[in-house]
Amino acid sequence: MSSDVSFDHPLDEATALRPLGDDARGARRYAGQTHPGYDNMLGPYGGITAAQAMAAVMNHPQRRGEPIAFTGNYAAALAKGPFEVEAEPARTSRTTQHWLIRITQTGADGAAAVVFTGTAMTARRRPTWSGDDAPMPTGLPAPDDIARPTWSGAGAPVPWLARYDARFIAGPLPDVWNGQENDSRTLLWMRDNPPRPLDFISLTALSDLFFPRIWRRRAIMTPIGTVTITIYYHAGAADLAAAGADYLLGQANGQAFFNGFFDQSARLWRRDGRLLATTHQMVYYKE
Amino acid sequence: MSSDVSFDHPLDEATALRPLGDDARGARRYAGQTHPGYDNMLGPYGGITAAQAMAAVMNHPQRRGEPIAFTGNYAAALAKGPFEVEAEPARTSRTTQHWLIRITQTGADGAAAVVFTGTAMTARRRPTWSGDDAPMPTGLPAPDDIARPTWSGAGAPVPWLARYDARFIAGPLPDVWNGQENDSRTLLWMRDNPPRPLDFISLTALSDLFFPRIWRRRAIMTPIGTVTITIYYHAGAADLAAAGADYLLGQANGQAFFNGFFDQSARLWRRDGRLLATTHQMVYYKE
Repeated sequence: MSSDVSFDHPLDEATALRPLGDDARGARRYAGQTHPGYDNMLGPYGGITAAQAMAAVMNHPQRRGEPIAFTGNYAAALAKGPFEVEAEPARTSRTTQHWLIRITQTGADGAAAVVFTGTAMTARRRPTWSGDDAPMPTGLPAPDDIARPTWSGAGAPVPWLARYDARFIAGPLPDVWNGQENDSRTLLWMRDNPPRPLDFISLTALSDLFFPRIWRRRAIMTPIGTVTITIYYHAGAADLAAAGADYLLGQANGQAFFNGFFDQSARLWRRDGRLLATTHQMVYYKE
Repeated sequence: MSSDVSFDHPLDEATALRPLGDDARGARRYAGQTHPGYDNMLGPYGGITAAQAMAAVMNHPQRRGEPIAFTGNYAAALAKGPFEVEAEPARTSRTTQHWLIRITQTGADGAAAVVFTGTAMTARRRPTWSGDDAPMPTGLPAPDDIARPTWSGAGAPVPWLARYDARFIAGPLPDVWNGQENDSRTLLWMRDNPPRPLDFISLTALSDLFFPRIWRRRAIMTPIGTVTITIYYHAGAADLAAAGADYLLGQANGQAFFNGFFDQSARLWRRDGRLLATTHQMVYYKE
C-alpha cells in the first residue's frame, strides 16, 4: 500500500484544455474553465489567462519549437466558468511559427464574445553566441530569510495570491496607503505555491505577478487592470527545468503614467543569475 | 500663380491605404503598397510595416480613441509591391477597443499568405494623475552639434536610412567591426527626413529605428531580423503635435541574447523631456 497520493497542481488544473476541433486553416479550438484558485477581484488573475492562451499554443499538434514571444490583450474580464480558446498557426516557416490566439465566452444572450486576443511566436532554436546585458542584482537575502507578506494593505485577500510564494526584498506593497510618492521598483523572490517545476506555462503565469507599479508609485489604492502583456522568453525547456521548483528573482519598474494607462517592465532570473524572461505590460488605472 | 507646391511626405505616401471592403465582423480590408523609399536589404524597414498596420486601425471608421498599445509580428519578409492589410475590431467597450491586424500578400502561386500579424488597443483617455519614472538624460549636446553618421560600416546603404535623421550621442554603430564586446546602449536624436510633424503613424515608424543591439554589443556584422515589436503610447495626439517636426531623444538597451533571439527596449522622449513612447522587440540573429 503506497502512501504516495498524486494531486494535480492548481496551475495544471487551470491550464487543462480539451480539444474541440480544427478548422481548415489549422486553427484548433479548445474548451477551458476558469479556476476558482486563481480568481481575482473581477475575473481571474491575468497571468493564468495568459498561461491558458499559451497552453493552447503549446498543446497544438502542429507547433514547431519553443516559445520566443507572447502578447496577450485583456479585452474584457472573463466570467467564471467555461471559455473557448483558439490557437491558429498564421504562418509557419522551416524554423519559426506565428500564432493568433482568441479566447471567447458565451454570454447570457447566447452570443460568443471575444474576451482576450493574443499573438505568439515559437521557433526551433539553434546554438549561437549568447549573453546578457541585464545582470541579476547580487548580495540579496535568501528567500527563507524573508517573511511572506500578509497582504494586509491590499484589500480583501483574493484567491490567486495564495497560488504564489512572494518574498519581497525591496519595494513591497506600501505598509501605509498615504499617497506618499515613491519610486516604482520592486525586487522579490517568487515561485508557485505549492512549489512546481518551472516550465513555459508557469513562467508565463509568473510574468504577471508584479503588482501594479502605480500602487508602489503613489501609495494610493487605485483601481487598475492590465490591458496587454508581452513576454519574451530567453530560455529553452531544459533551462527552465534546471530551475526546478526553486524561487526566481523578479524585478519590476514603471516607466510612464499618463491619463489612465501606465507601463511596467520586469525581468525574471533563475537563482543562479540566468535571465529567463523579460516582460512588459500596459495597465489601465482609474484616477 | 502660387509658388507653393505640395509634396506628400514619403511616410504619407508609404502609409496611404485604399479601403477594399468590410466584412460582417466589422473588419476592414485595405490595399497598400510597399514604398521604395523605405526598402531595407530584404523586405521593407520594419517600422514602416508597423506604421502601415497602425494606419489600418487609425483609418477604420469604427475606431474609438487613440492608440494605447500595438504589437506587430513579422512573419515573413514583405515582397516589393501590393499588400492587403485587415483591421478587425475584436472587442469594443465604451472607452476601449481591441484590434486584430493581418497583412497578407499574394504569392506567385496566386495564394494569399500572412506576412504580418498584430494586435492594437485604442482608448478614449480621461485626465488623471500622470508622471514619469524614466527621466530623460540631461546635459546632452544639441542635434545640430552632432554630425550625421555616414553608415559606412553598416554595409551597402539601404534606402530607408535616408528617411531618418539620426544624430548619435552615445553608442553609435561600431566604427570598427572587430568583435570587441561592448555595452548595448545607444542614445540618439532622431526624426523623419525630411522633417514631418509627429503623429501616431510616424511615432510608430520611429519606434523601430534603433539598430540591432547585437551589432553594438558584439561589433560583428550579424544577420538579424526583428520578429516582433511592441509599442506603448504615453501621449495623446496633441502631445505629439506639440513636438512638431523636432527631434526626439531615443535610448535603447539590450537585455538577453540567447540562441538566435535577443530583446531590446527603448524610450522616446520629446525634447522637453516628455516620455512619448516605450517600445520593445525580439530580434532573430544568426550566429
